[in-house]
Amino acid sequence: MAGEIPFTYLRGLYMTEDFAAGAGGRDLLEKAPAADIVTFVSDEVMRHMSGTEHPQGVLALVDIGAVRREPLSGYPAIFLEDIQDPGNLGTIIRTAEAAGISAVYMSSGCADILSPKVVRSTMGCLFRVPLIRLDGEEFYVEIKRQQEQGVRFVAAALGGTRAYDEISYDEKTAFLVGNEGNGLSARAIASADEKTIIPMEGHVESLNAAVAASILMFEAARQRRV
Amino acid sequence: MAGEIPFTYLRGLYMTEDFAAGAGGRDLLEKAPAADIVTFVSDEVMRHMSGTEHPQGVLALVDIGAVRREPLSGYPAIFLEDIQDPGNLGTIIRTAEAAGISAVYMSSGCADILSPKVVRSTMGCLFRVPLIRLDGEEFYVEIKRQQEQGVRFVAAALGGTRAYDEISYDEKTAFLVGNEGNGLSARAIASADEKTIIPMEGHVESLNAAVAASILMFEAARQRRV
Repeated sequence: MAGEIPFTYLRGLYMTEDFAAGAGGRDLLEKAPAADIVTFVSDEVMRHMSGTEHPQGVLALVDIGAVRREPLSGYPAIFLEDIQDPGNLGTIIRTAEAAGISAVYMSSGCADILSPKVVRSTMGCLFRVPLIRLDGEEFYVEIKRQQEQGVRFVAAALGGTRAYDEISYDEKTAFLVGNEGNGLSARAIASADEKTIIPMEGHVESLNAAVAASILMFEAARQRRV
Repeated sequence: MAGEIPFTYLRGLYMTEDFAAGAGGRDLLEKAPAADIVTFVSDEVMRHMSGTEHPQGVLALVDIGAVRREPLSGYPAIFLEDIQDPGNLGTIIRTAEAAGISAVYMSSGCADILSPKVVRSTMGCLFRVPLIRLDGEEFYVEIKRQQEQGVRFVAAALGGTRAYDEISYDEKTAFLVGNEGNGLSARAIASADEKTIIPMEGHVESLNAAVAASILMFEAARQRRV
């Protein structure tokens, strides 16, 4: 990850002696733009700073401007409605980069992308995947706007009529994924061009939201490769 | 979920008045084997009992014997080496049921399946998916034993030579998935019949362990349906 930190936005690096002595630490120290932004801290201080029991031993202070706000060209994109769990949101952002998603659009009911748990679970992808937050009405207006430009919205919904792998994602596709407990709102489902389901065995009622989003995004990536 | 709780193992039900008044609560009260196992508690007490800020309003006291220990017949199965995060482990168990996995085998370095966070994130699947914990050496002995019976072990590893969707999972397959931070051990990778990768775009180094496991399990499910 070190090589991919946007150094122009880097304001400070905090690390333990143990981390600095390892391969990742040596690499980071070599690449750091200036020595005076590096501060060495004790394990105890690192635990307090990171807010976790078992920190990795390194923290970066990064300018908020480093978060990308402009979508990459191309599709698929993903629209998230009220993903409240920070771990789920961070995991979706991480998977989105790996699956080649051009932008993650979030309704105002989604967790704060700058909360520590989201930042941690994105594993650095926060600064590479375009993240676009749309307040209130704007989320639905943006769906409409993109539809008018030929984007096809595929909603993951229990009432879906086609399995996710029976749909072709080779045109301009945007996925619509909803809240952990309630799924997508009736309004979001109604706005979609297609409703899809992930076929499930056993007695499971639903998948974890990050798992469902990941399966959809990687099916699109699989189809592109085939 | 209510209909799928193994009632013979149910020792107690605790719920708030609000939960009891809803559809899920009424359904559960109707199905409860005896009225005297139900206790109504205040929101305040529920918060303390559940240990979460926003509990769902219902808790069940269930006999440990309700956890299944015998694999279902058939494959695929999944072997987890040192999945330490309780949320990841619970999510994998939940996804495993949805993907039709016959058993989840866990090394002794995996999180405790009876820890509150694992129990919560399985969403009830804990009592339906066979969960087999193998201490120390036993984990690797079981891999060997199943291989001798014709099971093919597919390891998710960065050095994998074939993409996960280029492999056919129609025979007896077991997936091998490793630790969040370090991946599979060299020993586990060496024991596998095949090493696979999930092709990734961008600069992502790895996927979340539960996401990676889910993509593999659902690819096998997709191939069965095609």
